[in-house]
Amino acid sequence: MILAGGVGGSKFVAGARRAYPDAQITVIVNTADDITMHGLRICPDLDTMMYTLGGGSDQIRGWGRAGETWRVKDELAVYGVEPSWFGLGDLDIATHLVRTQMLDAGYPLSEVTRALTTRWLGDDPALHLVPMTDDRVETHIVIDDPEAASGRRAVHFQEYWVRLHAAPEARDMVRVGIEKATLTPGLANTVAAADLILVAPSNPVVSIGPILAVPGMRSALASASAPVIGFAGILGGAPVLGMAHRLLPMIGVDVDAAAVGLHYGSRTGGGVLDAWLVDTADAGSVDQLQQAGLPSMATDLLMHDPGSTAEFIRSGVERYGAGTASR
Amino acid sequence: MILAGGVGGSKFVAGARRAYPDAQITVIVNTADDITMHGLRICPDLDTMMYTLGGGSDQIRGWGRAGETWRVKDELAVYGVEPSWFGLGDLDIATHLVRTQMLDAGYPLSEVTRALTTRWLGDDPALHLVPMTDDRVETHIVIDDPEAASGRRAVHFQEYWVRLHAAPEARDMVRVGIEKATLTPGLANTVAAADLILVAPSNPVVSIGPILAVPGMRSALASASAPVIGFAGILGGAPVLGMAHRLLPMIGVDVDAAAVGLHYGSRTGGGVLDAWLVDTADAGSVDQLQQAGLPSMATDLLMHDPGSTAEFIRSGVERYGAGTASR
Repeated sequence: MILAGGVGGSKFVAGARRAYPDAQITVIVNTADDITMHGLRICPDLDTMMYTLGGGSDQIRGWGRAGETWRVKDELAVYGVEPSWFGLGDLDIATHLVRTQMLDAGYPLSEVTRALTTRWLGDDPALHLVPMTDDRVETHIVIDDPEAASGRRAVHFQEYWVRLHAAPEARDMVRVGIEKATLTPGLANTVAAADLILVAPSNPVVSIGPILAVPGMRSALASASAPVIGFAGILGGAPVLGMAHRLLPMIGVDVDAAAVGLHYGSRTGGGVLDAWLVDTADAGSVDQLQQAGLPSMATDLLMHDPGSTAEFIRSGVERYGAGTASR
Repeated sequence: MILAGGVGGSKFVAGARRAYPDAQITVIVNTADDITMHGLRICPDLDTMMYTLGGGSDQIRGWGRAGETWRVKDELAVYGVEPSWFGLGDLDIATHLVRTQMLDAGYPLSEVTRALTTRWLGDDPALHLVPMTDDRVETHIVIDDPEAASGRRAVHFQEYWVRLHAAPEARDMVRVGIEKATLTPGLANTVAAADLILVAPSNPVVSIGPILAVPGMRSALASASAPVIGFAGILGGAPVLGMAHRLLPMIGVDVDAAAVGLHYGSRTGGGVLDAWLVDTADAGSVDQLQQAGLPSMATDLLMHDPGSTAEFIRSGVERYGAGTASR
């Protein structure tokens, strides 16, 4: 089982499949980036995961579909309909149309995801993508706005990320709907039955953070019999992908692999991890982590390709995965 | 004011604009062909009218947008999502997304139409497109189906027309929602205030028929002070456009210009027309129509281009439009 966001998460999952080709892998995917635009329900992390693992993603752009076109988006702009800043491709729109129609018909997101992934991953895949919750959760970021009466305003995470390029200081964050969200049916059991749980090197604030914030998730992880091994996405003090450095300060966490590991915390200390892997660039922090009660090792965490990703996953699992038997 | 359907109707309206460039024209457009597909609300006649009069229609194909592409439709087919037989272009989808979102937000179709046409016809156009009703009305055609328990089944008109090419015998017709439909707000007043009312040579069964069937429409026409002049779409016993010959027998009307004129009927006899123009090919029926109390003349009704259409409209109006002053 893997907890993951979108772009980095899908690279990590591709590595895990390479490392354990015979494993049944369930990926708990963040849905707090989801947004409704032009009446279409868009799940960026689920889609990135689905396209990437189904061989349909654009490798160069890093998101969306290979061979994508923008006919509908350009035409919406001619109608003057906002928002126009989101990269809504034609192939992508087909996915959103199917999803939106199924949701409108009453299917929960998890079943919609299963239907969509059947095309990409087959009827009985060794890989299951499961949204963290069937409920609607959306991350909003509070930024300064001199024109607002309060001096601040909240924008959807996608607007902060895509339109504003994470340039404004993130003052606060609201995960709309998270308190009332429930784990996707069956997910707590899947966590309990897993024999290995990996936390992908995804954004700790807006990808892994929301998954852990769904009521019931932390307690499911706390009581899981499998070892929980996390992988740092901050290497040498900077994120490899994305802009986590713009968000970590908001939650009071240094942009530093060790700080993120301690933010997740060790299970023995009430956190979620049994072990935390950092990059060789951060090898100096391993002692500090160990002393703080979080077993840790350093290895090359750059996800050059599925092969190199598989290699560091295997390193971590060989070192810490034995916990399965011992617990 | 003009009562019209889509493809033929828009050619007729283009001719009317050419004939009377300074006139304020309101077009009452049929909406009984409307359909929801993939969660998108599609109004084929309104769209054809808007694209054609806004200079954006495909002149060769005869429907949809010039320069259209089919990326989303092809991708929906890969997902295996039905229906796949409807020509849902990418540019067209942008229109449907804007419409669907506005309808979902609670705007009535007439206001949505006004918003969409602003792009195509400008802010304060001399031409107003008004759906016959803001209520949902859908024409279903009853066809034989040996596999059905009743031996018959009803299909949406679009399925009959586009997927089945009007090949099965049309046994009956149901205009779902028509009894409870009300004329678009203001429309009865517009009919009352018009100084000329033209009935386009559109399909009498599924285009003009539904407009006349909206409760209140016939009485509005009956009490209108303007002359009502109709134009035959059946020339020499065959429709110029479309497949009206597949539907007229269902309502017991011969595929014949005079028969359609008498089906609409003269206002003095409780019908809707003050005059009925037939093609020169049907000149032989003029006497019969006159004797039946429906003033009639024959002229060339082929809509080669807006110029020739303007010419026959002017002929009819010069002959019968004087009624305005005399009533």
